[in-house]
Amino acid sequence: MSPERPRRSIATVCLSGTLEDKLTAAAAAGFDGIEVFEPDLVAAPWSPAELAARCADLGLSIDLYQPFRDLDSTDPDRFARNLRRLDRKLDVVAALGVDTVLVCSSVAPDAVDDADVLAGQLAAAAARAAERGARIAYEALAWGRHVSTWERSWDAVRRADSPALGLCLDSFHVLSRGGDPAGLATVPAEKLFFLQLADAPALRMDVLQWSRHHRLFPGQGAFDLPRFVGCVLDAGYTGPLSLEVFNDVYRQADPARTAVDAVRSLQWLEEALALRRARPGPTPPAAPALSGWSFTELAVDGVSGPQLAGVLDALGFTHTGQHRSKPVQLWEQGTARVLLNASVTRPTAVGVASVTALGLESTDPRRSAARAEAMSAPVLPRARGTVEAELAAVAAPDGTQVFFTRTGPDGWPADFLPTGARPGPGTGITGTDHVGLTQPFDAFDEAGLFYRAVLGLEPQEVTELAAPFGLVRTRAVTGPDRAVRLALSASALRRGGWAPGVPEPQYVALATDDLVATARALRAAGAPLLPVPANYADDLEARLDLPGELLDAVREHGLLYEEDAHGGYLHLATDVLGDRVFFEVVQRLGGYDGYGTADTPVRMAAHRRRRQTRTAGRG
Amino acid sequence: MSPERPRRSIATVCLSGTLEDKLTAAAAAGFDGIEVFEPDLVAAPWSPAELAARCADLGLSIDLYQPFRDLDSTDPDRFARNLRRLDRKLDVVAALGVDTVLVCSSVAPDAVDDADVLAGQLAAAAARAAERGARIAYEALAWGRHVSTWERSWDAVRRADSPALGLCLDSFHVLSRGGDPAGLATVPAEKLFFLQLADAPALRMDVLQWSRHHRLFPGQGAFDLPRFVGCVLDAGYTGPLSLEVFNDVYRQADPARTAVDAVRSLQWLEEALALRRARPGPTPPAAPALSGWSFTELAVDGVSGPQLAGVLDALGFTHTGQHRSKPVQLWEQGTARVLLNASVTRPTAVGVASVTALGLESTDPRRSAARAEAMSAPVLPRARGTVEAELAAVAAPDGTQVFFTRTGPDGWPADFLPTGARPGPGTGITGTDHVGLTQPFDAFDEAGLFYRAVLGLEPQEVTELAAPFGLVRTRAVTGPDRAVRLALSASALRRGGWAPGVPEPQYVALATDDLVATARALRAAGAPLLPVPANYADDLEARLDLPGELLDAVREHGLLYEEDAHGGYLHLATDVLGDRVFFEVVQRLGGYDGYGTADTPVRMAAHRRRRQTRTAGRG
Repeated sequence: MSPERPRRSIATVCLSGTLEDKLTAAAAAGFDGIEVFEPDLVAAPWSPAELAARCADLGLSIDLYQPFRDLDSTDPDRFARNLRRLDRKLDVVAALGVDTVLVCSSVAPDAVDDADVLAGQLAAAAARAAERGARIAYEALAWGRHVSTWERSWDAVRRADSPALGLCLDSFHVLSRGGDPAGLATVPAEKLFFLQLADAPALRMDVLQWSRHHRLFPGQGAFDLPRFVGCVLDAGYTGPLSLEVFNDVYRQADPARTAVDAVRSLQWLEEALALRRARPGPTPPAAPALSGWSFTELAVDGVSGPQLAGVLDALGFTHTGQHRSKPVQLWEQGTARVLLNASVTRPTAVGVASVTALGLESTDPRRSAARAEAMSAPVLPRARGTVEAELAAVAAPDGTQVFFTRTGPDGWPADFLPTGARPGPGTGITGTDHVGLTQPFDAFDEAGLFYRAVLGLEPQEVTELAAPFGLVRTRAVTGPDRAVRLALSASALRRGGWAPGVPEPQYVALATDDLVATARALRAAGAPLLPVPANYADDLEARLDLPGELLDAVREHGLLYEEDAHGGYLHLATDVLGDRVFFEVVQRLGGYDGYGTADTPVRMAAHRRRRQTRTAGRG
Repeated sequence: MSPERPRRSIATVCLSGTLEDKLTAAAAAGFDGIEVFEPDLVAAPWSPAELAARCADLGLSIDLYQPFRDLDSTDPDRFARNLRRLDRKLDVVAALGVDTVLVCSSVAPDAVDDADVLAGQLAAAAARAAERGARIAYEALAWGRHVSTWERSWDAVRRADSPALGLCLDSFHVLSRGGDPAGLATVPAEKLFFLQLADAPALRMDVLQWSRHHRLFPGQGAFDLPRFVGCVLDAGYTGPLSLEVFNDVYRQADPARTAVDAVRSLQWLEEALALRRARPGPTPPAAPALSGWSFTELAVDGVSGPQLAGVLDALGFTHTGQHRSKPVQLWEQGTARVLLNASVTRPTAVGVASVTALGLESTDPRRSAARAEAMSAPVLPRARGTVEAELAAVAAPDGTQVFFTRTGPDGWPADFLPTGARPGPGTGITGTDHVGLTQPFDAFDEAGLFYRAVLGLEPQEVTELAAPFGLVRTRAVTGPDRAVRLALSASALRRGGWAPGVPEPQYVALATDDLVATARALRAAGAPLLPVPANYADDLEARLDLPGELLDAVREHGLLYEEDAHGGYLHLATDVLGDRVFFEVVQRLGGYDGYGTADTPVRMAAHRRRRQTRTAGRG
């Protein structure tokens, strides 16, 4: 652990599995400590002392025992019983060797409203704790019966005036209610006992359900965690930054993966804090600017390889290079470059084809790689990649290799021998607009944070669309100038056996300045364009006042068109090539900043029909 | 179609897939008609006329075209554009041959608030529709900007006073806001153009999100659909009962299955209506009372069979019968009867063991079977079952065979030859308390309705618990006297590759009147009781004021204990036997009516450890 940064801790409730699984994952990911979530201990085979020993073996401190619920009561008998319950839990706390136990504000009908009575009961509890060498961190639940804001919890702690009583702050409980942490400056530093962190998406729902099901790690949601934590640190807090995330997906995802994702969220947060507070501190190398696409690499087999080559030819690409030592072709048009890597050795009837690598132009590839490593990204051994002249590639959460490259004579193109083929007239394709990648169900939020923290891209809003085989969630990650855009998508619910074509295909979206002209050229060259139903154009005509010329082109070439507040988007798709790749060709009009997701259901239904036709042997 | 019942219709949005998939599923399940959900048509390859022809081929009428959104506007230009959009959609409606198009109340910022202006705009739209021989059914969305109740939509329709304008009622929009359909008695019958039906669970959330993600088919949720529909029919409505269910799971589940589930929900509703309105009508045979458990059948293989037999012996059961023609053993203790069916022909190292059939005592097995058939349950061919003396078995949604039986000399026991073994002293087990069945993810809501509609059991509340490998949803279905109880459970999110032991095991819960004595006997007999961590009893001691004697027994025998408002529940579990079955022994104290779900995470973590121990070869 570096002395300059706060300790990194994680509540065991964040991770899936038994307590044994959770500890192993937290330690492997490099956490300094844990919060013990009581139900995890109750179900564990270790005594508290054995757990403490296990944590010590793993190099993990135990920073908090939580939660103790519904302590205060308007009924003296019940309060006495609650104190007896606390005594038993203080036995556990002592055996664990923890110094802090979290008491959250009561949600019970008998919760105390009177500020002085509440302070008195908290003081009595703190006295019990102090006798055992422990202290109580009191937390306002956002749905507490009377105490639901940090201000109210501070009022109780202040009145109680006990050295063994302080505050536990939880970013979710404060920010979900629109609370302001700025006032924390008035709280004495020694009263800030503990800090729990969670991000969350902006949702309109019951706050308890929101909290229990939809929390996220910092950097994945809509809360301004850097500001929140900045306020707490400025107020003098010196304890750990501890994650407490209740999330339905993480509850059932591989804890080893989740723990790495969680550590990365703190690395991201620490960097944001260091930058925001404008003071020197240990930060990873800043993310170099990514100025565009070097290439997209597709893995193909003996069936899909020739098919893809033929389609690239029809799209107006030229096979300009051949890898010096591997079966990899380079195809180019404008700045759009596609590598066909015939490394798949077990061909299937329909052919294997998938996006395996992205080449992104970095102003400083070496620094990009150093940052990736600092942000817990798995750096790939150089020998694994297609491109050998470059320094580094990292694996994204979906397994895609991300290369940091420079397209110059000393960069990745040096790996390729020119074929001598001269570029033809092309079809108007100028470059790569974006790449669309279907994420594994468990990795959607992880991916957003990965691209944000590791590559310095900015995650955009999550949108949901009703696709033929279930809801699909999409989120773009983009560079500030949009030179790099990735469209990530995943099923809103993990799919079962019914949905055909799972996982959904990936695609490469190529840019043109005149899609109508490009479409005409593609059609003339025999590109396998996806047919769009006539009903689509009829609906477009009913919904939007489009020029007749444009509507005619939409009808003639099977184009898709949609608008956002800033402009329009004209696009087309090819058939699915091999088992899971297709191309799009897109034209952005005005300031359109989306990815055609409103049209996605139509595209998916059309792809489904082509698949059926192909399966039926008629296509 | 029977002339006495309303037509059965379903909106295409209820079903997963493309429009082609949906039509096939709706027709196969026996629906009379469909509502065409516009996005399904837009993505379809058929022209409206071709779709009409396809529906005619399948015997489906098209009852509604929907939705047309945001018609009215305070901006005259925009309203004129909206009318032009309506004209285009009326072209589609005409080509489809539909007579009714749904217009829902506007959610746009320019929505009209003034009642007379709104009525005038609706009348203008109705006039356009009338010119084309169509009519407009106006619906209040629960989140409409100004019109969000049926009363407000009726006010607009009444003021507009146009024969081509009437109401569309949607049970969700009315009941989600706590609306009362009783007042519909004042609406003239000829103004009730259309009726859309959805049930829903009682959730505290944004009504739009509730509507778009969590609707259910009638009988699956918390709404009183029979009363709602009764009011609408009493008001003189004669159109179809049409399902419109937006549900995240159904959106991605096999539409052929969903359509059968959907038809069953209308069959259930029609019966409830007929009974409630106390007038003769075509109803299925009433569900005969189920007076208890005849048997639970477990499929085993050469590895798990001897293991299970040994455990039953240790549990105090006696092998009393052998099937006349099949490798099936009958084991008995009290009224608890377990069949071990050694029909699994591909043994695995750990052994296959699963619950394959339930025998339920019916006062009239023949009528139970006839009802099941009338409720679209798949009746199994007699030869498939173990028990041959009985008439009928049906397949539950998870594939479990449900037999309607009578335990008497002329019933199922006649299939078994006595072994001559005399029952021993036993261990105090008196019968079967319940059976716990893990449901396939897509079938959880379907299962609740299945047991309700087919068997006449009553679904209880859905509860959610945080288990080690993800959230688990549970719901019991019970007979009125609790002689039959089934505990159904499923993951709240479909699990991926990480969670070990998927699917979760099934279990048979055996009843005792004295679990401490029974546990002592089981331990003496060497039954493989699941160890419970000492932390569990410590927590119990902290939480509840339990007699020291009981706590001692909990500690000594590894018992679990929990309470609800009515009483307590003392229970224990065995190890998992074979790959996915275990036994519980349970004692209900007072009026406890639950299933021990609060203790489930502890039980699951303990099972997980035993599995790891077994895998590591140390157990």
